[in-house]
Parts: sequence; structure tokens; C-alpha cells
Amino acid sequence: MTGIEIHRRGLMLVLSSPSGAGKTTLSRRLLESDTEIDMSVSATTRKPRPGEVNGKDYYFLSTEDFGIMRNRGEFLEHAKVFGNYYGTPRKPVEEALARGHDVLFDIDWQGTQQLDETAPEDLVKVFILPPSAQDLEKRLEKRAQDPADVVAARMAKASDEISHYQEYDYIIINENIDKAFMELQAILRAERLKRRRLTGLANFVKQLREAL
Amino acid sequence: MTGIEIHRRGLMLVLSSPSGAGKTTLSRRLLESDTEIDMSVSATTRKPRPGEVNGKDYYFLSTEDFGIMRNRGEFLEHAKVFGNYYGTPRKPVEEALARGHDVLFDIDWQGTQQLDETAPEDLVKVFILPPSAQDLEKRLEKRAQDPADVVAARMAKASDEISHYQEYDYIIINENIDKAFMELQAILRAERLKRRRLTGLANFVKQLREAL
Repeated sequence: MTGIEIHRRGLMLVLSSPSGAGKTTLSRRLLESDTEIDMSVSATTRKPRPGEVNGKDYYFLSTEDFGIMRNRGEFLEHAKVFGNYYGTPRKPVEEALARGHDVLFDIDWQGTQQLDETAPEDLVKVFILPPSAQDLEKRLEKRAQDPADVVAARMAKASDEISHYQEYDYIIINENIDKAFMELQAILRAERLKRRRLTGLANFVKQLREAL
Repeated sequence: MTGIEIHRRGLMLVLSSPSGAGKTTLSRRLLESDTEIDMSVSATTRKPRPGEVNGKDYYFLSTEDFGIMRNRGEFLEHAKVFGNYYGTPRKPVEEALARGHDVLFDIDWQGTQQLDETAPEDLVKVFILPPSAQDLEKRLEKRAQDPADVVAARMAKASDEISHYQEYDYIIINENIDKAFMELQAILRAERLKRRRLTGLANFVKQLREAL
């Protein structure tokens, strides 16, 4: 239609929240309804669980290979959790962004900080909060069949996660899942229209001005 | 619902575009459908036209009063156009933003630059482009009953306006008015969720953490 094509660079969408604020549901809905975004696939040194597929659920790596990649700077972010290493390989994300495809991340505030250091321009950081303390307690108690120390660790992690809300661009308060999802979609739609993500604009504008 | 109330500060939405790119239609639709945004009312030294209401269409001022306000820094932006002065009074905009209400501006790149100097945090800058040079020509020719010098001046102004697209945050390419309007709505919805516009969050988060 335009004669000159305008492309957009993909973006990296980070959804963070304390456990139980609805992040998993929102991520699933987004991935189901939006063909321009896919989940980031992490690399890990932990052993595959039954049914997990290499390259789809995770890239399963030996500790040695993980270390080599890390030393080469081939991870956008990485961390050690319960004795296993996890990381986001840089190359598949870079390839997705270059072809105008978005990547969704399910990472905590520490991973988000690392992404922010390596690719701030591509990053869109959304923090999801529960509507009230009572609501959060209720959701965390639902899983109360877990051992007491697991529950305590989860609560400490939720509190730690919440304390970093100031590092995020957008806040969604998930009082109603449909409204929260609409808000998430609006953020994604808007961010895709950011001028700085568009290429080909300069030539397009040049053509417009020549016609005048 | 939350116990602690979260408020948002309003934002200033600037829609700019070359003449004929659909800005007027998009502004009208937005004002009709969204109760949280109103058009900014400019002050001017030009005489009221029949039917124009003071305080609604414009604040009609004497040249002397305009000068006094300008010298006191009471305009967010101002300009002289065809011998008349125009300006955006700071006070009503500040009051709207403080109560969480948004303000829509129909100003050119020069007014936008002035707003950007005085209130960059509150400003959301959207540039609307026609889908092609042919389309823009066609739209400008529709008004070809105007005198040739008027048409020439309009085209020069359009070209000048377009050359400043890089100063805007978002680009909407108006190939289809419904799609363009949906994009404009998404931008507004998303910008309202920006963390930095929210007040009361710190106390809300404190309450959440105390419950854990």
C-alpha cells in the first residue's frame, strides 16, 4: 500500500508478579490469542522431566556447555536456582526481534534487571499486582497443602518480588482477569506503535514530502 | 477494594499530523467515546466568530491580557499565527491532570516542542501519517476549490509538519480509520497504566508486603 515498506522491530515483554497474582493465566491467554508473540525458551542444566521437549520447554544443557555459553556472553540473563543454572540464550531472541516478532519472558526481578542492562530499548516491563492483601493471602493459602517451609519460602519470595515494582514501566492491578487481559493487550498494541521500533519510516516520510 | 486508594495523574495527549491524515476524525471519536479526556481550550487574541463561546471554544483575550499572561509564564505553549496570538493556559490543564483527567491537544510540532520543555513526563506524543503519498495528495486536492496560494501554503505546512515525525513517541499510519482509532485507544489505555503516573502505589505495596 505504501510503496515503501515499514517494518517494526520486535519487543521483549516481561511479565512479573508475586506468585498468585494471575501472571500464568495472562501469559497463556496472550500466547493463545496473539500470533506475533512467543514464549522465550530458557536453557537449563537441570534434567528434563518426563514429557519435556528439548528446544520447546527448555534447551537442556550440560553444566559445562552452560558455562561456556555464559563465558561467551551468549545469555541475555542467567541465574542459579536450587543448584541448577537457567539462562535465556541471546541468539533466538535476537532473531525473533529482527524479524518483527515479540518474545514473552516469565522471569523475576533479577532476570529483568539483567535484560535491562543488555537490551533496554527492546524491553517492556509489566508488573502485575493483586487487588488487595486479602486477595493475595487467599491465593497463597490455596496451595496450603504444601509443607510449611515451602509456603514460607514462597511468601518471602512474593514479598521480595513486590518490593521491586518500581523497576517496571506498567502496573496492572488484577482485580478482574478479563480487564487485566485487555490492559495487557493495550500495552502490547501501544508498544508496537512506538516510533523507535519502526524502520523504513525515514524513506516513507521522504516519499510523502516529495509528493507535496 | 484495595483499602488503600491508587490514583493516576492525568496525561497530555498530543495528536499531530499533516493536514488530511485523519487527525480531526480521530480526535472527535476519542472525545465522544472516552469520558476521561477533554479537549484543551486555547486562549486567543483573535475576535470570536459567530457562535463561538468564551471558555468553551476559546478563551478570548485582549492582546494586552495575553501579553501579561505570557510574561507571567501562564501558558504551557503559545504562538503567533496570521497576526493573532494563541496559547494554552497552564492552570486548567494542571487542574485536570491533578484530578486524573486527560487533556487532548491539537497543536503543531512547534507547540509540541514547547509542551515537551515544560511537562515532558505528562506528555504522550502521537503522530498520524497517511498510508501513502498518493493518499495524501488526494486528500489535499479535495479542498482544491481554495485559492492556489492557500493550497500551496497548506502543502508547505504539511511537509514541514511531517519532517518532525522523529520528535513523537508513537506513529499511527491511518490506512483504515477504525484500525487507527483502535490503535489510538490502545496507546491511551496503555499510557494510563504507566507506573510513574500512579500515586498511592508505595502504600499499597507496603500493605501487601505486611500481609505476607
